[in-house]
Amino acid sequence: MDFEEKDMLACCGSTKFVREMVLASPFASLDLAVSAARDIWFNKVDVSGWLEAFAAHPQIGESSSSNTTSAGWSRGEQSTAVATATDSSLQELAEWNARYRQKFGHIFIICASGRSTDEILAELKKRYSNRPIVEIEIAATEQMKVTELRLAKLISAKAEAASKGDS
Amino acid sequence: MDFEEKDMLACCGSTKFVREMVLASPFASLDLAVSAARDIWFNKVDVSGWLEAFAAHPQIGESSSSNTTSAGWSRGEQSTAVATATDSSLQELAEWNARYRQKFGHIFIICASGRSTDEILAELKKRYSNRPIVEIEIAATEQMKVTELRLAKLISAKAEAASKGDS
Repeated sequence: MDFEEKDMLACCGSTKFVREMVLASPFASLDLAVSAARDIWFNKVDVSGWLEAFAAHPQIGESSSSNTTSAGWSRGEQSTAVATATDSSLQELAEWNARYRQKFGHIFIICASGRSTDEILAELKKRYSNRPIVEIEIAATEQMKVTELRLAKLISAKAEAASKGDS
Repeated sequence: MDFEEKDMLACCGSTKFVREMVLASPFASLDLAVSAARDIWFNKVDVSGWLEAFAAHPQIGESSSSNTTSAGWSRGEQSTAVATATDSSLQELAEWNARYRQKFGHIFIICASGRSTDEILAELKKRYSNRPIVEIEIAATEQMKVTELRLAKLISAKAEAASKGDS
């Protein structure tokens, strides 16, 4: 399974992560791709690279109207949150997002897949009390969960395209 | 003991640290100033603020010729290292500094006071194997040691000036 830079960039917005994953590819399976991704993300990408990746996401509760692969996946990951949102919960989420960003200097990152707006808001409030160095590692762990889901989507899309003979 | 921004900036180059310390001053003693500084540095300054402070230092083994308070204190802190340096140890330190910066994206921060060049080099090599998130917290702890030494120098300089009636 060979990867190009644009494939990897849709999974994680860190330049170093993308470059190292392309160098490490091809991968014989999703498991091997995920192992390589974890090693690169936690051991080789520095903290500035983590911040670069966080900045590539829309803020939680906000959806990008862009038609990039990444924006489409983000809308899918936030579909439970969108289905369970009310005007007042979205308002509260926007206020807490702003407080969070003021304290930590980066947006709140959570793997939103399957999570309701209330669950996301509860997590945000709980994590807000963390020290910045603790919180950035939690955010990086959530980013890795998002990356793993996206690697799986990417590999299955590639397999499907290959089986149709158009790849 | 009242502090101005330029006093604090000589102790630690993070804008947020400086602003919060000035807001928290005056301090009745060095102990109270150090307690406030630790709380601000570890709980309130975010990771970007830590990187900002690291960037305000000369690289270890290199001395700034600037006549700022901070540059003068830095030369004092590195005096043991300078006294024990050889051409080859300085060369090796320069090479490891470059490798470190390549991996972590920031310079190697160590409280150099009383440490020989060989000790500093051994620490650098040991810390090089750390994950970036682990290493940045060690660097921040070393930065705090430097800040504490400088707060003590600042307070004693102010006390001396006051006793001479020129402050």
